[in-house]
Amino acid sequence: MNLDFYKSNNINVDLAVEARDIVRGQIGQEIPGVVVDREKYSNTTVTTVKIVEDYAEQIMGKPRGNYITIEAPALRDNSREAHQEVADVLAKKLSSMINLPENANILLVGLGNWQATPDSLGPKVIEHSMVTRHMYNYAPEEIKPGMRSVSAISPGVLGITGIETAEIIKGVVEKIRPELIIVVDALAAGSVDRIATTIQITDTGVSPGSGIGNKRTGINKDTMGVPVIAIGIPTVVNAAIIAQVTLEHFLEQIQNNQALVQLSQNLNPGLMQQAISQVLAPFGGNLTVTPKEIDSLIASTSKTVAGGISMALHPAIGAEEYTMYLN
Amino acid sequence: MNLDFYKSNNINVDLAVEARDIVRGQIGQEIPGVVVDREKYSNTTVTTVKIVEDYAEQIMGKPRGNYITIEAPALRDNSREAHQEVADVLAKKLSSMINLPENANILLVGLGNWQATPDSLGPKVIEHSMVTRHMYNYAPEEIKPGMRSVSAISPGVLGITGIETAEIIKGVVEKIRPELIIVVDALAAGSVDRIATTIQITDTGVSPGSGIGNKRTGINKDTMGVPVIAIGIPTVVNAAIIAQVTLEHFLEQIQNNQALVQLSQNLNPGLMQQAISQVLAPFGGNLTVTPKEIDSLIASTSKTVAGGISMALHPAIGAEEYTMYLN
Amino acid sequence: MNLDFYKSNNINVDLAVEARDIVRGQIGQEIPGVVVDREKYSNTTVTTVKIVEDYAEQIMGKPRGNYITIEAPALRDNSREAHQEVADVLAKKLSSMINLPENANILLVGLGNWQATPDSLGPKVIEHSMVTRHMYNYAPEEIKPGMRSVSAISPGVLGITGIETAEIIKGVVEKIRPELIIVVDALAAGSVDRIATTIQITDTGVSPGSGIGNKRTGINKDTMGVPVIAIGIPTVVNAAIIAQVTLEHFLEQIQNNQALVQLSQNLNPGLMQQAISQVLAPFGGNLTVTPKEIDSLIASTSKTVAGGISMALHPAIGAEEYTMYLN
Amino acid sequence: MNLDFYKSNNINVDLAVEARDIVRGQIGQEIPGVVVDREKYSNTTVTTVKIVEDYAEQIMGKPRGNYITIEAPALRDNSREAHQEVADVLAKKLSSMINLPENANILLVGLGNWQATPDSLGPKVIEHSMVTRHMYNYAPEEIKPGMRSVSAISPGVLGITGIETAEIIKGVVEKIRPELIIVVDALAAGSVDRIATTIQITDTGVSPGSGIGNKRTGINKDTMGVPVIAIGIPTVVNAAIIAQVTLEHFLEQIQNNQALVQLSQNLNPGLMQQAISQVLAPFGGNLTVTPKEIDSLIASTSKTVAGGISMALHPAIGAEEYTMYLN
Repeated sequence: MNLDFYKSNNINVDLAVEARDIVRGQIGQEIPGVVVDREKYSNTTVTTVKIVEDYAEQIMGKPRGNYITIEAPALRDNSREAHQEVADVLAKKLSSMINLPENANILLVGLGNWQATPDSLGPKVIEHSMVTRHMYNYAPEEIKPGMRSVSAISPGVLGITGIETAEIIKGVVEKIRPELIIVVDALAAGSVDRIATTIQITDTGVSPGSGIGNKRTGINKDTMGVPVIAIGIPTVVNAAIIAQVTLEHFLEQIQNNQALVQLSQNLNPGLMQQAISQVLAPFGGNLTVTPKEIDSLIASTSKTVAGGISMALHPAIGAEEYTMYLN
Repeated sequence: MNLDFYKSNNINVDLAVEARDIVRGQIGQEIPGVVVDREKYSNTTVTTVKIVEDYAEQIMGKPRGNYITIEAPALRDNSREAHQEVADVLAKKLSSMINLPENANILLVGLGNWQATPDSLGPKVIEHSMVTRHMYNYAPEEIKPGMRSVSAISPGVLGITGIETAEIIKGVVEKIRPELIIVVDALAAGSVDRIATTIQITDTGVSPGSGIGNKRTGINKDTMGVPVIAIGIPTVVNAAIIAQVTLEHFLEQIQNNQALVQLSQNLNPGLMQQAISQVLAPFGGNLTVTPKEIDSLIASTSKTVAGGISMALHPAIGAEEYTMYLN
Repeated sequence: MNLDFYKSNNINVDLAVEARDIVRGQIGQEIPGVVVDREKYSNTTVTTVKIVEDYAEQIMGKPRGNYITIEAPALRDNSREAHQEVADVLAKKLSSMINLPENANILLVGLGNWQATPDSLGPKVIEHSMVTRHMYNYAPEEIKPGMRSVSAISPGVLGITGIETAEIIKGVVEKIRPELIIVVDALAAGSVDRIATTIQITDTGVSPGSGIGNKRTGINKDTMGVPVIAIGIPTVVNAAIIAQVTLEHFLEQIQNNQALVQLSQNLNPGLMQQAISQVLAPFGGNLTVTPKEIDSLIASTSKTVAGGISMALHPAIGAEEYTMYLN
Repeated sequence: MNLDFYKSNNINVDLAVEARDIVRGQIGQEIPGVVVDREKYSNTTVTTVKIVEDYAEQIMGKPRGNYITIEAPALRDNSREAHQEVADVLAKKLSSMINLPENANILLVGLGNWQATPDSLGPKVIEHSMVTRHMYNYAPEEIKPGMRSVSAISPGVLGITGIETAEIIKGVVEKIRPELIIVVDALAAGSVDRIATTIQITDTGVSPGSGIGNKRTGINKDTMGVPVIAIGIPTVVNAAIIAQVTLEHFLEQIQNNQALVQLSQNLNPGLMQQAISQVLAPFGGNLTVTPKEIDSLIASTSKTVAGGISMALHPAIGAEEYTMYLN
């Protein structure tokens, strides 16, 4: 699988770690202009991909910046310790990315469609987040040291509002002038084992076309005028990828048949694309693969992400305490 | 009951017809500077109150402008004909108030908290509304003559977003530049028989403090820069009004006891207020009276209001047709 | 206020502590056949009312049995400690009431209408409860010592299903044969300061007509064939009570006017009832008073109740741990 | 693709028309013991498959009985006429299958998980259905000639209740003794072009393992004791089918390469299965493919199905009228 497949199927590579793997596979070496770092925790691996040069930016199709990926297969289990560890790691990594005075204003944005389960991650995280901005005016006695002014919106999707999501956010940003925007979004991955087990944090914001819904405008520092951190979790894999990867696995397995190998090398790559298109035709590229239990996976990971964000934004608030400000 | 009672209990008089009745009762005559007109339909009465002078504006505590009140007790029944008639009357009256070119952009705003049944009217109307603005860019073939560009948001409430509702709306307005804003809101009435039977349409927008949630900023032409029409339906009565009206009815009933009459006339009005405050103390003025079936009343009236709005905005779309654009 | 007022307005007295106060007021002494006990915790007072004799049962209009009332005004604040204490006290009191082998089956039932905020307490508690019954068959490796088999349903209300709630529950009970049923329901109180601050636990189950929805059949050991514990929290006060109590407070306040006192004593009590009926007429007895923030009060107390129940049913599960079995 | 593939992947063939196509492909002729009939309407094709003999029952893996399939690609468009035609055809076909006295009791059951969009079809249909059973007792004046007694439940799924769905339904059935049960369920299809365009009506009820959720017990005349009609609409395709069909299409396309043809005929079929398993491993067979707009497809088709059912059950109620009994 290479990036051409994604492009010809109008599929965005949402995860930088996946874009890196694809490109490394294609060019057969580490990508010049990309710096990678890895840390291990008991349930969690953190990979930081820094895209620092033009070449890397272009070949990976992702803007220059930092991409922190938290991988925790245990997130899919009902393990309180794993979820707590992930929330802690998320808080720590997010804190290292934001560089804000104590009295900064932050706007949280939950992207996606709350009526479609796999796309509802963003609005669910907002539901569990600790919103404080109004207290500064109306209940200052509830504000404690180590808390920041946080507001939150779930702007909906184009098909419901008739308005580009980026326009709604930009409008609100120009009114309330936050120092930082954090957007949360459901992503598409290249492999089902990333569903509900991988969290990406990036200071490059959201690119046009990424996520499950079709964002047509980026949500980033250029369009918003303030830094934008995007936090995303894959909840689906595009069906065309499933089909393509299956074909590739199949062809790999017949590699020890010499005649077939040669023939498959001579195959018109268009044939594979054609097979996939026939199968998925009625909905174009809009078919996604998701596990049946995606509702409970989103219910639990959205709490973990909301907890990590709240700990990062309100450093005085401990893991156990933040729930009492909810609702 | 007079306006002082409302003021001292921080209760807004949302309906102009009620404000007019209260003031007429107080001053014992028709209010100078108010013009009233009445029409009858089979299930529906329409009263138009025009506040045209400063004096009326001040004594009624409501801004100058037009207030159309549709009263239809049959709205509370499961009568399809009554709902259809009300939708038609609403469409006709709303059309007469808007004066827009065919290609105008309109922004619908559903005020209120979708998690609190009696305050969820606005978001529910948005759910049933016909949004078309995005089709002009992405599906122009679905646009027919006699349709207008309509977008829609439900901005939530201060306690959920941390942002004044008016700020969110203003931000969106400055981005998408509609020619008209229509806001829909659940109102508080002075009498339970108005719950789910009265619709008010006004070109004065929304005043600070009106509706069920506590709007702190007005949503009107002054604050938004474009005309704002507000459509509201009472879904609650403030508990203090219930208590006060009960006391007044009680005192009226003992009027034929001469001694009591005299005594009650000498009563310190503070005594009544004190009795009410004691009973309602723990929640201040934030107690509302609502019928148990408010969920189904809102479910049915929100469809009627959404239908009336869609017919007014898209004149080529008939009553039966508009549902096919809904999701 | 006496029990006749409730009867003539078709209002049930859901809380035994309130029934006791009313009857004591009427008869001017402690009720024979009622045993009362009281305990104090830091944020919480627990009152146990035991109705042990026929006379008490009849005069109070409540069946013989134990009624434990947990009163915690701090439940209305966002205090994590208060909520934790209440969950602990609830777990302890509930444990003392159930007397079950370790391998007992328990059925949780969330009564009420999930579409009407003040009536949604029961279904919300079910959402946050730890259901394990299916694991015994399909995932026995997830069952740990100190866990019990728990199943849960939210049967809806008559207007939605067309079926008496008691019939649905009875049908399920006859299939799965639990040793105990725990029903959770939103109650009506006699005073707004009880809303979201009082929890009643009773081994008498649910009486016909109690709660916010109109149960026409009792849900108790007689009708179900197994012990039924009911846990309820007031979320509304009937509007007629607000009106009546306001009148009574008003009349009390004029007590130092000798002439008025005498007159008010001579007043036809029907006059008060008539005043109330006039005001509340359009919806009969179906008007309830509830605070605007009832949605967030139910969101937080439903988690507290679900936590207390889970700790009582699964003694090996600590307060912090039970969340990991949710979803 | 043959039935072995389904069996080895634990996938149920929910649609009889698909089972028939697969078996005909395998045996190369019409299936003995199957009678097929076809009708055409302007937007709709109706295929009736009658399984009348043991042999057909066994080879198709579906119980003897009638399977009516309504195919209407226009259901996926926002066409009011198409939806109205489908509702009419559904009503007509359903009427022909039920043979009930005018005063029969019918229980509607909405299967599936309301928290997972593609599985929420059943509960959504229940929301839009006309429930009348309680009126016979409590509001007989609202009952008109040509209406029947209808009740409705959405029993949830095993993971939420801890109880087999069939047990809950059986419990309710034994209490309210309906003459007929109609269950509505989201199905899995073998091809994405069936999603939201095909409706199956069968008098064989629901087989174990069918639908999106994992029913472990059948819901049919044998288990329930009364006739059960199942109405289903595909909302997903199992991901393994997408992968398999893509491989098959791919191999077909290389048919004109003689050498490859021979080789592919010699291929170990296990290789294809292995390729698929590798790709879908982390979630076993529980991955489904669904279009992004499944939420709005379910919103619109659930109304169409509810309308068709209401017209069939209440013959005196016209298409336009039934909405007024909702809520």
